[in-house]
Amino acid sequence: MAARALVFDVFGTLVDWRSAIARAFSASGVPGDPEDLADAWRARYQPILAEVNEGRRPWGDFDVLHLATLDDLLAERGVELPEEARRRLVGAWHRLDPWPDVRPGLEALRRRHVTATLSNGHLALLVDLARHGDLRFDCVLSAELARAYKPAPAAYETAARLLGVEPSALMLVAAHPWDLEGARGAGLQTAFIDRPLEFGPGSAARDDPEADESAGDLLELAERLTRDSA
Amino acid sequence: MAARALVFDVFGTLVDWRSAIARAFSASGVPGDPEDLADAWRARYQPILAEVNEGRRPWGDFDVLHLATLDDLLAERGVELPEEARRRLVGAWHRLDPWPDVRPGLEALRRRHVTATLSNGHLALLVDLARHGDLRFDCVLSAELARAYKPAPAAYETAARLLGVEPSALMLVAAHPWDLEGARGAGLQTAFIDRPLEFGPGSAARDDPEADESAGDLLELAERLTRDSA
Repeated sequence: MAARALVFDVFGTLVDWRSAIARAFSASGVPGDPEDLADAWRARYQPILAEVNEGRRPWGDFDVLHLATLDDLLAERGVELPEEARRRLVGAWHRLDPWPDVRPGLEALRRRHVTATLSNGHLALLVDLARHGDLRFDCVLSAELARAYKPAPAAYETAARLLGVEPSALMLVAAHPWDLEGARGAGLQTAFIDRPLEFGPGSAARDDPEADESAGDLLELAERLTRDSA
Repeated sequence: MAARALVFDVFGTLVDWRSAIARAFSASGVPGDPEDLADAWRARYQPILAEVNEGRRPWGDFDVLHLATLDDLLAERGVELPEEARRRLVGAWHRLDPWPDVRPGLEALRRRHVTATLSNGHLALLVDLARHGDLRFDCVLSAELARAYKPAPAAYETAARLLGVEPSALMLVAAHPWDLEGARGAGLQTAFIDRPLEFGPGSAARDDPEADESAGDLLELAERLTRDSA
């Protein structure tokens, strides 16, 4: 069955967090390789979300969690940074550029499908990113609305409920197999987008053999979905 | 202080429910004047929302509530209508045309402000209306996300929280003084838009003297807000 609506993971799938966060570290005065710092910050992402999902940490939005993981990273490296500089680093997550295919790809996909974000980032952050990148969605959805972070089933189920579609008529588009696996667990269809640059220059292509669709970018996905429904 | 974000009431303020619902009644086979039927259906709107807000009726989205009020209206008039025809009437609320100024007005307002719906209609209905009218918002918000219908303060407060702004930095744009009054009660700024045609041809112009701004349409509002911030 063709998916009626598409929900998109955002960080890594639609926007290039790694380059922008590395640039923010370059400007921050924090010693060390900026790309390494970006990766080390991002590596604290899944563990802190798991703490929230397991009830070991109260709900916090991405600004709160990014500040906590940054403080942790800086403490580990013995770096002292004024609050203003730490706020600037957290704020950098609100101004990430989309990958080049994303704006036209979303427009192409929107012709035949309802499109929405489904990110662990909170709504206000997603609105800033969509405005920054001039990205058009029919709707901005977030794990915040379920108060459960992906890959918890409630995050995907809430998106389907709010869009008024059965989970089986909803497709998650994402670059991360753990996210796609979570979506399948909630009954969604899945599309893998390969974003090797998320892992740094020279990274190998990846795939998710379990996904219903697999594409190099959103324009290729739009072609595949059009062909499948023809 | 200038508002950072604008939230828009939808039914009556952005889209012309009255003409489309009258046309749907014309096609439905229900005896009686179609415009009178549309008004009589809409007149049941605020009472049933009050029932939900007061806990006398369980939460229902607009498809559920429109069906309940339609059944009530038809019973009062002694009209029997097959389920398929009743579903078509309820579905007509998903395909309402915007007033002519709305598409360009939203684009103009979006340049300097975050824009979002804030309707009592549920998200899936608002997505259908935005797609039908090719209306672009930064975000689609609904009273559904607060599980409290406007004019309950929670509906407005939830919108401010999700957009990451203080209520005093948020402005509700609406054609209905009861809605604007509810917003002011939650600490929002307010803009009144005069939509006399919502009340039928030949209706008089209205105003809300308590509103921070008052305009004949969204393009005029965009001019006023630009002038105020200059």
